[in-house]
Amino acid sequence: MSEVVYGAGKTGEQLVGIFRAMTKARQNTFVTRVTPELAASVKAVFPDVVHHTAARALTRDVVPLPSPSGKVVVMCAGTSDLPIAEEAALTAERLGARVVRLFDVGVAGLHRLLSRTNQFKNARAIVVVAGMEGALPSVVAGLVDHPVIAVPTSVGYGASFHGVAALLGMLNSCASGVTVVNIDNGFGAGVAAAMINRQSR
Amino acid sequence: MSEVVYGAGKTGEQLVGIFRAMTKARQNTFVTRVTPELAASVKAVFPDVVHHTAARALTRDVVPLPSPSGKVVVMCAGTSDLPIAEEAALTAERLGARVVRLFDVGVAGLHRLLSRTNQFKNARAIVVVAGMEGALPSVVAGLVDHPVIAVPTSVGYGASFHGVAALLGMLNSCASGVTVVNIDNGFGAGVAAAMINRQSR
Amino acid sequence: MSEVVYGAGKTGEQLVGIFRAMTKARQNTFVTRVTPELAASVKAVFPDVVHHTAARALTRDVVPLPSPSGKVVVMCAGTSDLPIAEEAALTAERLGARVVRLFDVGVAGLHRLLSRTNQFKNARAIVVVAGMEGALPSVVAGLVDHPVIAVPTSVGYGASFHGVAALLGMLNSCASGVTVVNIDNGFGAGVAAAMINRQSR
Amino acid sequence: MSEVVYGAGKTGEQLVGIFRAMTKARQNTFVTRVTPELAASVKAVFPDVVHHTAARALTRDVVPLPSPSGKVVVMCAGTSDLPIAEEAALTAERLGARVVRLFDVGVAGLHRLLSRTNQFKNARAIVVVAGMEGALPSVVAGLVDHPVIAVPTSVGYGASFHGVAALLGMLNSCASGVTVVNIDNGFGAGVAAAMINRQSR
Amino acid sequence: MSEVVYGAGKTGEQLVGIFRAMTKARQNTFVTRVTPELAASVKAVFPDVVHHTAARALTRDVVPLPSPSGKVVVMCAGTSDLPIAEEAALTAERLGARVVRLFDVGVAGLHRLLSRTNQFKNARAIVVVAGMEGALPSVVAGLVDHPVIAVPTSVGYGASFHGVAALLGMLNSCASGVTVVNIDNGFGAGVAAAMINRQSR
Amino acid sequence: MSEVVYGAGKTGEQLVGIFRAMTKARQNTFVTRVTPELAASVKAVFPDVVHHTAARALTRDVVPLPSPSGKVVVMCAGTSDLPIAEEAALTAERLGARVVRLFDVGVAGLHRLLSRTNQFKNARAIVVVAGMEGALPSVVAGLVDHPVIAVPTSVGYGASFHGVAALLGMLNSCASGVTVVNIDNGFGAGVAAAMINRQSR
Amino acid sequence: MSEVVYGAGKTGEQLVGIFRAMTKARQNTFVTRVTPELAASVKAVFPDVVHHTAARALTRDVVPLPSPSGKVVVMCAGTSDLPIAEEAALTAERLGARVVRLFDVGVAGLHRLLSRTNQFKNARAIVVVAGMEGALPSVVAGLVDHPVIAVPTSVGYGASFHGVAALLGMLNSCASGVTVVNIDNGFGAGVAAAMINRQSR
Amino acid sequence: MSEVVYGAGKTGEQLVGIFRAMTKARQNTFVTRVTPELAASVKAVFPDVVHHTAARALTRDVVPLPSPSGKVVVMCAGTSDLPIAEEAALTAERLGARVVRLFDVGVAGLHRLLSRTNQFKNARAIVVVAGMEGALPSVVAGLVDHPVIAVPTSVGYGASFHGVAALLGMLNSCASGVTVVNIDNGFGAGVAAAMINRQSR
Repeated sequence: MSEVVYGAGKTGEQLVGIFRAMTKARQNTFVTRVTPELAASVKAVFPDVVHHTAARALTRDVVPLPSPSGKVVVMCAGTSDLPIAEEAALTAERLGARVVRLFDVGVAGLHRLLSRTNQFKNARAIVVVAGMEGALPSVVAGLVDHPVIAVPTSVGYGASFHGVAALLGMLNSCASGVTVVNIDNGFGAGVAAAMINRQSR
Repeated sequence: MSEVVYGAGKTGEQLVGIFRAMTKARQNTFVTRVTPELAASVKAVFPDVVHHTAARALTRDVVPLPSPSGKVVVMCAGTSDLPIAEEAALTAERLGARVVRLFDVGVAGLHRLLSRTNQFKNARAIVVVAGMEGALPSVVAGLVDHPVIAVPTSVGYGASFHGVAALLGMLNSCASGVTVVNIDNGFGAGVAAAMINRQSR
Repeated sequence: MSEVVYGAGKTGEQLVGIFRAMTKARQNTFVTRVTPELAASVKAVFPDVVHHTAARALTRDVVPLPSPSGKVVVMCAGTSDLPIAEEAALTAERLGARVVRLFDVGVAGLHRLLSRTNQFKNARAIVVVAGMEGALPSVVAGLVDHPVIAVPTSVGYGASFHGVAALLGMLNSCASGVTVVNIDNGFGAGVAAAMINRQSR
Repeated sequence: MSEVVYGAGKTGEQLVGIFRAMTKARQNTFVTRVTPELAASVKAVFPDVVHHTAARALTRDVVPLPSPSGKVVVMCAGTSDLPIAEEAALTAERLGARVVRLFDVGVAGLHRLLSRTNQFKNARAIVVVAGMEGALPSVVAGLVDHPVIAVPTSVGYGASFHGVAALLGMLNSCASGVTVVNIDNGFGAGVAAAMINRQSR
Repeated sequence: MSEVVYGAGKTGEQLVGIFRAMTKARQNTFVTRVTPELAASVKAVFPDVVHHTAARALTRDVVPLPSPSGKVVVMCAGTSDLPIAEEAALTAERLGARVVRLFDVGVAGLHRLLSRTNQFKNARAIVVVAGMEGALPSVVAGLVDHPVIAVPTSVGYGASFHGVAALLGMLNSCASGVTVVNIDNGFGAGVAAAMINRQSR
Repeated sequence: MSEVVYGAGKTGEQLVGIFRAMTKARQNTFVTRVTPELAASVKAVFPDVVHHTAARALTRDVVPLPSPSGKVVVMCAGTSDLPIAEEAALTAERLGARVVRLFDVGVAGLHRLLSRTNQFKNARAIVVVAGMEGALPSVVAGLVDHPVIAVPTSVGYGASFHGVAALLGMLNSCASGVTVVNIDNGFGAGVAAAMINRQSR
Repeated sequence: MSEVVYGAGKTGEQLVGIFRAMTKARQNTFVTRVTPELAASVKAVFPDVVHHTAARALTRDVVPLPSPSGKVVVMCAGTSDLPIAEEAALTAERLGARVVRLFDVGVAGLHRLLSRTNQFKNARAIVVVAGMEGALPSVVAGLVDHPVIAVPTSVGYGASFHGVAALLGMLNSCASGVTVVNIDNGFGAGVAAAMINRQSR
Repeated sequence: MSEVVYGAGKTGEQLVGIFRAMTKARQNTFVTRVTPELAASVKAVFPDVVHHTAARALTRDVVPLPSPSGKVVVMCAGTSDLPIAEEAALTAERLGARVVRLFDVGVAGLHRLLSRTNQFKNARAIVVVAGMEGALPSVVAGLVDHPVIAVPTSVGYGASFHGVAALLGMLNSCASGVTVVNIDNGFGAGVAAAMINRQSR
């Protein structure tokens, strides 16, 4: 369906070239990890490209996307993890999932998380994004009976080692049904969640 | 349904106590990571306990298991990774999945893997178990459009660092839909696969 | 007050020598990390030595201990972390703290933890012992306004790296008031908790 | 009482928004890890914000802070560790602790440290900040009978690995009563010290 | 024959000095890891220097190179690994190897790789360049009976740890005949491949 | 030609089974990493199996091996690295290489190494086995113009980290033409050396 | 003078062979890292071999050792580090140094260390052996103006990582004149100290 | 004698203040790790400050330095390691050592190193500076009978891990008399070498 391009390290010129080629090929385009400067230089040439600022992504669709179905929940604790969470959500949506975002639930404010249980316990797949100690996926997976895809983020400092602490925490989760993707890999989590969601149709 | 017990580090006495309690509670019991010695000392007391030697597990069921449905494929390259693969397969089966085992497919013998594509491409979830460089999940995920759960094993020596090389390889997979569990965590992969498989009913 | 001896690596002969010297010096003795074999060989000579099997410790007191005061809570999720938790509890008790043990509260069973909040929220110091992903201290510290001393344990396998995953998780806790000791250092946590508890008299 | 904001990575615009919201909510504000540029852009809008340059923090108080009580000592060896030590001191002060700063005591100049013993031996909690080999907390804890909170800093080069050497040194301290926080986490140490100090009221 | 200079970290002035000295010595010059800026400042003085932009290298030959013989294949999956692959290819060529480039073969598109088998199975040495999980050398070496030199690249993010994941994957390859060079060391791989190729003359 | 079996972790029973199957298949058998106990239990059944004690290997040939040609040199500094060096030498021999062993040349005794230069400088491939700091391959590669395959061994203690120091030293070799295999992978080095040697026929 | 043999991993038979060869060659013999069992099996054949139990070494001298001169001080905190400290002391003695042992000085008991300053401040070289956080060399080097050779030991648990914490602490020492040897390398420290001591004659 | 200041991270203003204070105190000043910009801003105020460009250091002496005596040799392989080697040499000189620089001897060009043996074999201490695989100290220490201080540098890329490979290589040196300092710590090596050199007067 959609050509997916990892934008980090690409130049504006390279991205414009890709959009041009996709236009010719009548294919949708989805570029992840785009800086504001890169986005601007692409929009200067293709003004109809959509810049998803929170997800740091660009999209341009020439054929209709699949209509949303099922339910994927994407969760994180707050503003720092939000870009990765949005990347996961946008990815899952583009692959046909109906996505519910819960972006203010953390281990610190446990009661807020518990009060939202109804919003996520019937999801077909839950993506949980967390940095620092990465404890949220364990807590969430202890409350539901559905697959949880944990995304460690590089948010943190010192002994977080750019996401390693969160990654290890998630790999060692004592809760059932948790699987893990690479640090900051919101895209990969979104793809896996959409695949699981799609199974259920 | 079933009480699951991590057997590693437990004594025979402790396990016998657990089987006794489960009998009283009329609950099925599933013990993982059981040495042959431990298994023997349990069977001395409960002769009807089933010892799954390949999976290194004990089970004793007093209520019927769910009947198998859907399709989960568990793959590995050979004898070294087999115990973890069997643990994943047995776990998924006990949680209601119909499981197909493909235990002789590796990156080295690519043509054998390719000739089996029909056997795994329609699975609802695929568990791929691999040690050493852990390349198999990437190759498999490149051939299918379904969720792949990668299980790194501690098989290897030297710079395999007891499974770290395989773990990192899987986390960095360039193929879509791959999620990862802890090193040697066949149980966790089996649970996640069964959860995904169950979604589809 | 009490001579504290790290028992690991000592021989029975060496320990007997220490107990003999302490008897002469009219001093209490506290030996940590004692195997059952070591304990037996000491008790063969000093039958009045107390073997705290769960805490893997030996004590022999010739002068009275301080009477318990204040409140220190020691928490862990279950049997695997129990020896370290007991070591922390016994240590704090010997240093004058009244200790409350909560040994069946984990991140998995969140509601059980929450139902116990009254039992730990008024403690002067809380020692939280956890292996694997080490998420419990974050959750507990989010519920109280008192110092939490986190003890990572070497319980786990694979990417737990003998307690490193839990250690990193605790060092990166997003909750306030969490400080951390070395992996499996129940003794150190007990000392620090008793010191904090004692401040309050 | 006070909203605490981790300033690193925030924009001036975001911080101004936070100060605006806190003004409305009649709440004190405390922002850590603020660059001089960021501080300037906030002060352009809120001239009454206090910029604690040494601590790299901003504060604006609309309700009175608790009056200082007890005694927390914050120690470090010199100019490199000073920003983290000041962050700890300011944090503890804002949470009601009377704070004594000893900022020129190091392992190299042992006699200077020993000549100051009277100034720190009666503190309710001592925060010891150190980079490089991180030996100071062990030395200090050997001289007192009170809780020591050790803060490793990322000061150093080569095999200091951005604070890892200091962190490991502190976790392995042979002295009693030492607990540790994350690398450069002066804020966390200040909170824990203030909590301990508060217990004693 | 040729003086080889590692350009990274050198100044334009230093490089110009080297080219001047080589001119005097009537020796060919080969500079690797040259930024576009550095290349420009050299070409301003020596306009006849050849800038191999893809390989990020400069060459200036005053004596004829050896004429190409044998067959070395250099393979990679795409644009990100291309600079290192080109560095390997150019190096091998300068040392007398006839080089065939296959720069669009990856583990993801297995069928494209397999369709090219004839192009690489008769090479005297194959250089396989790959980042992320570094699985390509294993797959290639499983298809041929010739030495494979694997070059891990720093392409990737998160748990790729700047090429460590690829390096470990390659060192643990289950396929025969794979040897490995340092991360991003296209030059070293090119030298080794040319040495092997030369043996066969 | 020859079935190669990694013996580590196999049981005597499993190995006997393998020899039995190979006998039926009229194939040569080569088992690496065999303990003396394992060797004895195989020889009890197949008395004509050859036990290469230094190389820790078993062989049984039912068809003739290729006659030795070319020249592969295998070097190490002494007794500790000898089992890995012998494994490499035996492997290369079985694959048709004429092998020269130089097993008493080390970095410490530089003059002895230099006095042997004539013995290794015309080899088609040189396998250099070294533990501890792993400096020997760099020194050797600086003296010859042929491919050097470096094998780090796990010989050493402390900061050798079971061969990691040697592995890193070899990967960072400043000499040209060095490629590296996994720690203790004498077999892999032998295969690669034999492949290079065979090219030259 | 003396043949030095690293005993770890050698068999009794091998050691007896070495002593036999040295007897023939009229050379002194010094074997380090000898277990009690190994020592016994050598003494059964050579009853005049001296077993230095604390240093875990064997010696047999057929020519007189150099007479002791100069002054080397070897320091450690207690029983756990003693074998390594004794290995260093014995090594330096055999190479001609007069050695003073200070084996009860640690960072914890700072006043005891300070009261001994006269005993070590005029040494030509000081070997400081320490495990856990490895802070002693920094403290000692701050008190003297002579070379300090720091020996990290593998004594400790958890985040001591078998001596890595002590090693890093020593490498990052803020005191002048500290150099470091490998973990547990008492022998190497003894050699270096004796070399420095010898310079001064 | 001389105040030594670690210049990295200091501002020009701070350095000017230090020089001003030292002038008042009639003390020599030695600043290490100075960028050209920093040097310029200091020289603008104190034109008589000496900028040692190769050593990246500033000095200003108001009292005479000790006259050079003894012999310290500082060795490295080439331009990349030169700044650290110069820092070591300058440091040793300022502490009274006569220093001989050998800056073009490497493991690659063994014969050049051997031809210089007479220049370094009678040194009282030898500082050997090396990056990448760090093999030079082993080779040098094998040729002499004097203390060798090894300085790993952060020169290299990929699996050099900013000097870790060289550091580990040096710590595991099989040659006698090698001790090691932190990565890039030319200053520390210079101090230790001068201390050893001074012993001999």
